[in-house]
Amino acid sequence: MTRHQLIDQIRQKKTYLCIGLDSDITKIPRHLLSNADPVFQFNRQIIDATLEYCVGYKINTAFYEALGVKGWEAMEKTVNYIPSTHFKIADAKRGDIGNTSSQYARAFFETLNFDAVTVAPYMGSDSVLPFLEYKNKWVILLGLTSNPGAADFELKKITTEIEILNEGVHTIRRQTNYLYEEVLRKACTWGTPDNLMFVVGATQSDELINIREQTPDYFYLVPGVGAQGGSLKEVSEKAMNKDVGLLINASRAIIFVSGEKDFANHAASAAKEYQTELAKFLQ
Amino acid sequence: MTRHQLIDQIRQKKTYLCIGLDSDITKIPRHLLSNADPVFQFNRQIIDATLEYCVGYKINTAFYEALGVKGWEAMEKTVNYIPSTHFKIADAKRGDIGNTSSQYARAFFETLNFDAVTVAPYMGSDSVLPFLEYKNKWVILLGLTSNPGAADFELKKITTEIEILNEGVHTIRRQTNYLYEEVLRKACTWGTPDNLMFVVGATQSDELINIREQTPDYFYLVPGVGAQGGSLKEVSEKAMNKDVGLLINASRAIIFVSGEKDFANHAASAAKEYQTELAKFLQ
Repeated sequence: MTRHQLIDQIRQKKTYLCIGLDSDITKIPRHLLSNADPVFQFNRQIIDATLEYCVGYKINTAFYEALGVKGWEAMEKTVNYIPSTHFKIADAKRGDIGNTSSQYARAFFETLNFDAVTVAPYMGSDSVLPFLEYKNKWVILLGLTSNPGAADFELKKITTEIEILNEGVHTIRRQTNYLYEEVLRKACTWGTPDNLMFVVGATQSDELINIREQTPDYFYLVPGVGAQGGSLKEVSEKAMNKDVGLLINASRAIIFVSGEKDFANHAASAAKEYQTELAKFLQ
Repeated sequence: MTRHQLIDQIRQKKTYLCIGLDSDITKIPRHLLSNADPVFQFNRQIIDATLEYCVGYKINTAFYEALGVKGWEAMEKTVNYIPSTHFKIADAKRGDIGNTSSQYARAFFETLNFDAVTVAPYMGSDSVLPFLEYKNKWVILLGLTSNPGAADFELKKITTEIEILNEGVHTIRRQTNYLYEEVLRKACTWGTPDNLMFVVGATQSDELINIREQTPDYFYLVPGVGAQGGSLKEVSEKAMNKDVGLLINASRAIIFVSGEKDFANHAASAAKEYQTELAKFLQ
């Protein structure tokens, strides 16, 4: 899916909601467990019920891998089931040396038909670039995450030396930034707003304005609304850009509202509430 | 596998070689492709031929995921095939918020019976701790990796403030380290030499002595020997500790020596060469 198509979907449907299919088999309704593939049956019903309220689905690979081969099957069926009108994210947090990242890119962009994959930046350029080689596919790079551990490294001050050429004279300027800011700065030299987004946690409200200033044209995938306590309003007011530039993700707060037979209706209601709320910011 | 058992295996067999099963289906011998599960058939023959020369196998999950469900099946069969005398590493570079890392831990330590999993540190403490909760299982945390991109973030200087209590007086000391050093320092407060190792690239020879000084008792998983150009001798001389403390990984340089029917014999010869070389450092 292209950036243009994604923005079109957002404008048409008045929503920038992404639904996280963190489909933990211990939390899905009990009556589904007699099914041959309970996780896929759960996802299918959630997708059918929520399609009109969201622009994308995010599959958290951990919950599928925990089930082994059967989980990988459920993931494959789920990504194939999501219609092409919707942006499909593999929340996989992958990243390795170049020849290995190429294999991960193949896994999520060829073998599985995802539009985007989340990538961890620690190993630097050659761990990210292989994912960016695919046309109309996206890297969503970890920027500033929503969890407490973000304080351990992402929010540490780092010093970098930047070479500046001014009227034929090279000078070195030392610059102090948070690590996550350096990740944003460097990643913008690898990708563009057409193939790169950033993960920015909704719980990091103090940094949202700064992040938007540094990366004015990029989309953010924003987890941490709902179960983790981030505010929809604050994120939307501080970080929306002229193309919206936001995909707000909600998982548990939508998919696990009810454990009964009509769970999908409850998920639809929750998704509709989000959509109604988000529409207010899309004027 | 416990630390004690691992050291025993190293001493008994006079080797600290780990063989990387980066079993790229486009590189395995052609005659295997008619098999129902060519990757597993390849791995099985490699394992049978090299068991006596190594103490562990490292499965690079990317090469399996690139094949989708069939790849995940091959990975499951492979890890079940490796005998319990050998240390089984999932080179998966996972890491996410706490509830998600718990699912990855379940995937690799329960659903699949690995002894260790490689973890990326970017998201901090709660992304790593769930893996450390398993008894006799290991986190191998990315420290300083072997790839060129290590220069982008891992080798950037970061400033941290450390609180020091001296004769009842609290003072704050500012300290400047490389990011990877801060990762080592902090991780040593999360795990111990009994459940935590670090990935240290063989190509990072300038830093090896410093790394060993900072983490004297920890094991390192050392990739980058062979195809990536790191030196076995330099790593062994600079970073061995009293318990050896090293697992040298070689993948392509062992498993892809030959593409013919007798490929496993060639892999065995290559593994034996490594073992002979490593034995010299084990006096």
